[in-house]
Amino acid sequence: MTQTTIEPEYDAWLARYGAASSPGVLAPPITRLLEHCSVRAYQPRPVEDGVLVQAIAAAQSASSSSNLQAWSVVAVRDRAKLARLAELAGGQRHVAQAPLFLAWIVDWSRLRRIGAAQQRPTLGIDYLESYTVGVVDAALAAQNAAVAFEALGLGLVYIGGMRNHPEKAAAELGLPDGCFALFGMCVGYPDPAKPASIKPRLPQAVVLHHERYDAGRDADAVRAYDEKMVAFQREQGRDDRPWSRASAERVGGPDALMGRDRLREALNNLGFPLL
Amino acid sequence: MTQTTIEPEYDAWLARYGAASSPGVLAPPITRLLEHCSVRAYQPRPVEDGVLVQAIAAAQSASSSSNLQAWSVVAVRDRAKLARLAELAGGQRHVAQAPLFLAWIVDWSRLRRIGAAQQRPTLGIDYLESYTVGVVDAALAAQNAAVAFEALGLGLVYIGGMRNHPEKAAAELGLPDGCFALFGMCVGYPDPAKPASIKPRLPQAVVLHHERYDAGRDADAVRAYDEKMVAFQREQGRDDRPWSRASAERVGGPDALMGRDRLREALNNLGFPLL
Repeated sequence: MTQTTIEPEYDAWLARYGAASSPGVLAPPITRLLEHCSVRAYQPRPVEDGVLVQAIAAAQSASSSSNLQAWSVVAVRDRAKLARLAELAGGQRHVAQAPLFLAWIVDWSRLRRIGAAQQRPTLGIDYLESYTVGVVDAALAAQNAAVAFEALGLGLVYIGGMRNHPEKAAAELGLPDGCFALFGMCVGYPDPAKPASIKPRLPQAVVLHHERYDAGRDADAVRAYDEKMVAFQREQGRDDRPWSRASAERVGGPDALMGRDRLREALNNLGFPLL
Repeated sequence: MTQTTIEPEYDAWLARYGAASSPGVLAPPITRLLEHCSVRAYQPRPVEDGVLVQAIAAAQSASSSSNLQAWSVVAVRDRAKLARLAELAGGQRHVAQAPLFLAWIVDWSRLRRIGAAQQRPTLGIDYLESYTVGVVDAALAAQNAAVAFEALGLGLVYIGGMRNHPEKAAAELGLPDGCFALFGMCVGYPDPAKPASIKPRLPQAVVLHHERYDAGRDADAVRAYDEKMVAFQREQGRDDRPWSRASAERVGGPDALMGRDRLREALNNLGFPLL
């Protein structure tokens, strides 16, 4: 190793933030987290049961609010079912092609069943607080699974499109009342012929505040990030609107939400009163 | 290494699930995830800036819905402020004593500012969908930070009590309209004199479903888990109600939610119409 060697950890930092802010050498597990990419192209190789079992053990090892464990996951490998889920998610081909698809479920049906068996009321489930707890529980679990999959050499991408048609997704997955498919996750061994790239993120100073929130640093940092993202998107051959414009347009109004402006109604239909 | 050696990875699996279901040898990064414990007792040693910077880089490397990055984090070290936040969280001493406290924020204020500067509408932010996106984004980011902290030898515990008094927490952290402190996280080097234990979780068969949700395995598995948790809680000198009863009581009604039954109203006050 010489002075001129570029360390892999430096590469990951560089890709994520640009050179200016590198903190020096990173511990290898941190480098692995920084190297995360959304992987949408997979080898045909199946995901072994042993890999899935380890990833779900990691998921269950994440923190859970009051240990209520208000989540479930449905593993889908049936090609016909995956093709239908791909359509529900807005025609995302990688959903149809993924060796393994995981639907991450906010699950209050389990505790409702337990309460009913014990003749105890479970009215607290009906509140927005419990919806929030279930979303957080499911997301922490899913992210631990994601870290586990990547540590085992697999790649993945989250699928928010599972919320485009919540009732249809629930029917496809056989979910009982009190369950909601929060997002999906395509999993597989990455196709080396179609490598994914590390996406640049906003400078740390924009998201990390000390003692009190400080909005003062936004404007300059966002301008610099816009330039970086335009260059990155062009390099990738993708939509090269500046990030700030593309993001504002993404939340411009209900029409931009791809049907998810009716999420509240859908959740009500699925047994979430959201009081 | 002999046949009779108990592998550390076996220990983590045993603690999490019991012996019956061990899948054999786990990869070391998986073992580290399985060994997660909520750590509430810390050495006085401060958390170095370099550690925080790496953890936030890991957080920013987690997936973000449409790359909107709808979260922020406020790092708190001021002792007086921590004492006040500890009170807001229901008098949790470890919040007051933590070397570092992170408040994880659902942040749509940034994109509102960006939209205003560009004279673009951002009405999509007002929908439950966007609240959900922000909660997921913040949770994925926080869990990556948690994994990073533990990889660097630190311990942490999530603090849901940040939602007990959302408006007061927002005032304490100087949050603008469109920001909400979703949960906190106490971080520090674990006190070796007060080690934490791996908490058993439900059997995998209860949370992992194949192709379709299957509620049929719940009853027996929950009974077995209740017994395991009673034994674990007694060993820890803690509340030894069976898990199923304690959990049902935790969501028995609005009174059991520790003030969080008014979360919807609080979010409305903080600039989340939740349409």
